[in-house]
Amino acid sequence: MTVTISRENVFFAFGPNLRAIAQIEQGQEVLLQTHDCFEGQIQTTGDLVDALDWAHVNPATGPLFITGTKPGDVLRIDILEIQVGDQASMVTIPGEGALGDVITQMETSILKLEGNQAVFKDKVRVPLRPMIGVIGVAPALDEVPTGTPGAHGGNMDCTLVAAGNRVYFTVGVEGAMFGAGDLHAAMGDGEIVVCGAETPGAVRFIANVVDLPGLPTPFVETSDLVATIFSAPTIDEAASGATHSMAGFLTGFAGMDLNDAGMLMSLAGQLKFCQVVDPLKTVRFEFPKAILAEYGFRMT
Amino acid sequence: MTVTISRENVFFAFGPNLRAIAQIEQGQEVLLQTHDCFEGQIQTTGDLVDALDWAHVNPATGPLFITGTKPGDVLRIDILEIQVGDQASMVTIPGEGALGDVITQMETSILKLEGNQAVFKDKVRVPLRPMIGVIGVAPALDEVPTGTPGAHGGNMDCTLVAAGNRVYFTVGVEGAMFGAGDLHAAMGDGEIVVCGAETPGAVRFIANVVDLPGLPTPFVETSDLVATIFSAPTIDEAASGATHSMAGFLTGFAGMDLNDAGMLMSLAGQLKFCQVVDPLKTVRFEFPKAILAEYGFRMT
Repeated sequence: MTVTISRENVFFAFGPNLRAIAQIEQGQEVLLQTHDCFEGQIQTTGDLVDALDWAHVNPATGPLFITGTKPGDVLRIDILEIQVGDQASMVTIPGEGALGDVITQMETSILKLEGNQAVFKDKVRVPLRPMIGVIGVAPALDEVPTGTPGAHGGNMDCTLVAAGNRVYFTVGVEGAMFGAGDLHAAMGDGEIVVCGAETPGAVRFIANVVDLPGLPTPFVETSDLVATIFSAPTIDEAASGATHSMAGFLTGFAGMDLNDAGMLMSLAGQLKFCQVVDPLKTVRFEFPKAILAEYGFRMT
Repeated sequence: MTVTISRENVFFAFGPNLRAIAQIEQGQEVLLQTHDCFEGQIQTTGDLVDALDWAHVNPATGPLFITGTKPGDVLRIDILEIQVGDQASMVTIPGEGALGDVITQMETSILKLEGNQAVFKDKVRVPLRPMIGVIGVAPALDEVPTGTPGAHGGNMDCTLVAAGNRVYFTVGVEGAMFGAGDLHAAMGDGEIVVCGAETPGAVRFIANVVDLPGLPTPFVETSDLVATIFSAPTIDEAASGATHSMAGFLTGFAGMDLNDAGMLMSLAGQLKFCQVVDPLKTVRFEFPKAILAEYGFRMT
């Protein structure tokens, strides 16, 4: 039986002092309803960002207390399904994002989500690739706004955080205090103007603690690759962090020596951008599972 | 008739005072033989990097004087084929690359190139994806070592520079003084330990001046996307440069207003790493040709 968590219960910072709005069991299927990143404030092209109440931007639904989770546990979230709304919004914000120095006009665009496509200005159709922008657990010490990414997850805007994939976090506080929101019906790596196709929706998932102590988290697993995710003030630092995290995983978990790890990362690994527009930048390093198998390692 | 240029004629810096080793016509098919990035100094696992003559690293074959090219022209290189050798080398170099702070042991690995695969330590097989590491034209003013990327091209290590694709450069000096080398039988985005599967080989190509004045170069075109390429001292600067170059292309060539360009780049464009290990870092921004077509623009 699937437990449904309403989008009416949101929070705006992952932190150690959160109060859970519900308790869920490990292994239980949960349907988490989510607002879009504007908490529904933008519905038409006339709703511009200068009228936004910024205290209601980037809501995460939750937090959820996951029974039997304690600090240091590695929590695996199996994303079973991402449901999106029937429309999405995109905005331009002068001064913000990777083109903020040249964009001078606020604009809101409403994209229809039809079938498997998002339609931009009745002109451009792009495939739906639903993903979760904000997803994470409460850090042990710091309070991190939901608009910021970090070691706890948060606003990573990673396109791999999608249905069929698994995301791993290290639990910071008892119960994990899990939350998610900020769904994108589609988004390109980079998130240049600080938004994808922003949509309300719901995430169907299952949470479980797994026996992978010390896994460098946040970590993603798809059918054919694993990825380390790292956020830092500069892209250079985030790239270095994601790279070293993957090298640590390959040597610490997959049994490679460091030279093999480095050469194979150079040969067949992919350093990729998640986003370059949030308070911290996020980079991931992708590595093929097929090579892990050659070294005798398989994810659980 | 294809003109063959021997790999015996190499140079180690793109600059305004180069002397051409051959003259080729626009539209003429050229087969450019290339050394690997070590100019053949590494043949076995016993050939370690501490014995390298670094004055013979990153040779480019050429330079070629391309008739009828003058400063400011946009030169299109159609890459028809990339031939690779029957083996490739990879190395680790303590202190170098994205893991140079942790790698302590020099090592050389020789990969067999068999059929469509590169074989690493008789254990891991990865698909061959031949690409050109170093490719470019002479800058008008500066002398740039072939190991460094820049506005003229050079050591961009961009995985899109592959057979079937087109690369565009802005000519800096009369005759362009084109050269290429540093083939990789396969490489992941990032080039973590400063090498792909380094191999000698040959590049079959055709060069033509095209009527795209002001195109932000280096620029790549594949069957389904276009990409701007930008190199800078930090990844943050390179990412910003590639992003602004693409915005400039979309507004200046494809007829988009800046807000449409920004939103579509955020929705369907991809910011990607080329390499993070050379003296300058290289980033590209990929954008789908299908969307350009919706705005009535097609590459020539």
